[in-house]
Amino acid sequence: MEVNRNLDREIPVLDWETHLAARTKFMRSSAIRELLKLTQDPEIISFAGGLPAPEVFPIREVEEACKYVIRGMGKQALQYSATEGYQPLKEFLADSMHKYGIPAIPENVLLTNGSQQALDLIGRIFIDPGRYVLTGRPTYLGAIQAWRAYEAKFHTMQVDEQGMVMDEIEHAYHKTVEDSGYPPAFIYVLPNFHNPAGTTLPLERRIQLAEIATKLDLAVVEDDPYGQLRYEGEDIPPICNLIPERTIYLGTFSKIMAPGLRLGWIVAPEALMKRFIQAKQGCDLHTGTLVQYVANDICERGILKPHVKKICKVYKKRRDTMLDALTEFWPEECQWTDPQGGLFLWARVPESIDTTKFLREKALKEKVAYVPGVNFYPNADGGHNAMRLNFSYAPPDVIVEGIKRLGIALKKELKNE
Amino acid sequence: MEVNRNLDREIPVLDWETHLAARTKFMRSSAIRELLKLTQDPEIISFAGGLPAPEVFPIREVEEACKYVIRGMGKQALQYSATEGYQPLKEFLADSMHKYGIPAIPENVLLTNGSQQALDLIGRIFIDPGRYVLTGRPTYLGAIQAWRAYEAKFHTMQVDEQGMVMDEIEHAYHKTVEDSGYPPAFIYVLPNFHNPAGTTLPLERRIQLAEIATKLDLAVVEDDPYGQLRYEGEDIPPICNLIPERTIYLGTFSKIMAPGLRLGWIVAPEALMKRFIQAKQGCDLHTGTLVQYVANDICERGILKPHVKKICKVYKKRRDTMLDALTEFWPEECQWTDPQGGLFLWARVPESIDTTKFLREKALKEKVAYVPGVNFYPNADGGHNAMRLNFSYAPPDVIVEGIKRLGIALKKELKNE
Repeated sequence: MEVNRNLDREIPVLDWETHLAARTKFMRSSAIRELLKLTQDPEIISFAGGLPAPEVFPIREVEEACKYVIRGMGKQALQYSATEGYQPLKEFLADSMHKYGIPAIPENVLLTNGSQQALDLIGRIFIDPGRYVLTGRPTYLGAIQAWRAYEAKFHTMQVDEQGMVMDEIEHAYHKTVEDSGYPPAFIYVLPNFHNPAGTTLPLERRIQLAEIATKLDLAVVEDDPYGQLRYEGEDIPPICNLIPERTIYLGTFSKIMAPGLRLGWIVAPEALMKRFIQAKQGCDLHTGTLVQYVANDICERGILKPHVKKICKVYKKRRDTMLDALTEFWPEECQWTDPQGGLFLWARVPESIDTTKFLREKALKEKVAYVPGVNFYPNADGGHNAMRLNFSYAPPDVIVEGIKRLGIALKKELKNE
Repeated sequence: MEVNRNLDREIPVLDWETHLAARTKFMRSSAIRELLKLTQDPEIISFAGGLPAPEVFPIREVEEACKYVIRGMGKQALQYSATEGYQPLKEFLADSMHKYGIPAIPENVLLTNGSQQALDLIGRIFIDPGRYVLTGRPTYLGAIQAWRAYEAKFHTMQVDEQGMVMDEIEHAYHKTVEDSGYPPAFIYVLPNFHNPAGTTLPLERRIQLAEIATKLDLAVVEDDPYGQLRYEGEDIPPICNLIPERTIYLGTFSKIMAPGLRLGWIVAPEALMKRFIQAKQGCDLHTGTLVQYVANDICERGILKPHVKKICKVYKKRRDTMLDALTEFWPEECQWTDPQGGLFLWARVPESIDTTKFLREKALKEKVAYVPGVNFYPNADGGHNAMRLNFSYAPPDVIVEGIKRLGIALKKELKNE
């Protein structure tokens, strides 16, 4: 053994797989992320990602906030900080959650590296290997990925035009107890502008969920990244309004400010917050101090609300454009959801078309991308003729062109059968 | 069940412990973090934390970088980005690692939310419940905390004046195989200016470690947060120079730029990098885009190197001040390490004094804080008469006053026996 000055030497490749933990084999790359790599070709019109439109990032506001907090509080904004998060930001969030119908005080709030970290922390403190999670089919891909790393199993409930069907929960609960010996770790819901389904749970279903969860002593994870991006209709009270004692609510700045800040938050009962904080300490000590100061400055200046209004206006137009284009260019046999907000809609094509195959063999050749529906089914037992379409990222004229290209390809496919 | 408009109502408190995963009971709050809360009293002189001095934060440089990247690349800097990290920053780090003696290319580099996330990712992909980690006694507290969450066991090797004693590794390896049925997940070393011991591994011991690790097919985690903070002597080649094929190297901007950015990096063999990226995707999708752009701008401008020189000058003075004050004010029976760099030294008092008890009953009354040594022993089997003293945070005059107060209290304690 010697100090090797030749740093460009050939280095042996070891077989690492034999060194790894059992859980590591459950980890998979996100299909979306792998797909996004395929679609980096700038000629491709991508409805695949979940990216906000960069045109509506508050760039000037972030620049001003950076300047203000670094000049005025640079020593604090660049130092280590509390695991729980920056106190003024926690206060702002508790207050704004309160206005939204959630009985939160600052002690119920934990800042996270985006909502994805919140999903990870939930997996970490709740999921034993082999334990079930109840969720919809389809459901959010990032949640599946986060919880697979903890060796979760998934039991899914149907999602119809109004979101998750609640009638199945009690049966599902007993089935998972029977199968695993344990009650499910929690039930996961996306009540507003569901990713990927685009559906919104009506109040009656939320009340039904709250009653069943209480009866079964079930924890509820309420993921609400798009709640403030409503383009029509009235806000519906969150599940955390109905049963705050058993709801873990997730919010994020990614869609209303900017995802590159990596800032989300958890609202949870105080008794549980201690566990979240311990888990987060081990994960990364705390969320970035500077970005929390910057977000707080933007919040305190009162510019977030008008900014969200501006975003809603832009996205509403893109949603309407996509809906109109679908009606105009797609075959009659196709169906799609009509989301009241958010970033996505869910389209179904005739059963004869497999959307994974169609993406690879047809859509990408026409330079259009989407995410095939099966990726949102944790047990891969559906969605083969569905796809998720994002309408927030591409400008309206590009949306029309992309939907048109897909429509032409779909019609051709159906005709050739 | 009804929508409850009274958000200040009494909310039932559930018993969450019965809902949690088995691993959650292994999570504990960091003793340091709990202690720091006690020491938020501004009158207390704290040698407890591991905080860099805010006087040497590159505040103006960060402000300028924010302005530059937000104005010039705001749409990218605020958007989602790749899990692996920002390509130009990966290139800069690969290049600077190369100069440091590590044969890295950008594909070997992953950006993390500080080094703590790197420790967590390592636990996640390597540690099965009940699997052993080999480490020194004492060792870094944050690593213990990160890996306890994965239900690791720890087998420890003695740390003497030159760092970890390598003669014990082979025996330890076989002992852990015997005890758990599996080889240890990896060996964890802090070769430069050890936290908490302040020791530096000489080249012979690094070579010895590399030979043993190769013989036993053992992965090495080389944690090097302070490597660039050397106040005297010559750089010693990192272990990753000797056995890059089996070393996972951890670096961080926390001590050389600012911890509030939450930016660290992993250098690992490419075959393993795929697993780290999958694990990180599930954890938080990616590290903050904005802070990576900011750090990259500072790196590209070439101002990091002179800035590190400035930090070293300030910390060297503080270290010397602490060493002089210890010699002047502490009882003869005490000993301490003489670190060539970093942020900490390790002091031993006579065995009759329990440093945890002494902290609570004496030191805090004299308004001085440190971290009791036992916290750095994963199996709590030593360090009862030791303490970790940080010399980077308090200015020189405060260091003198704090060491003097501790010295007087220690002398009093020894006299009273």
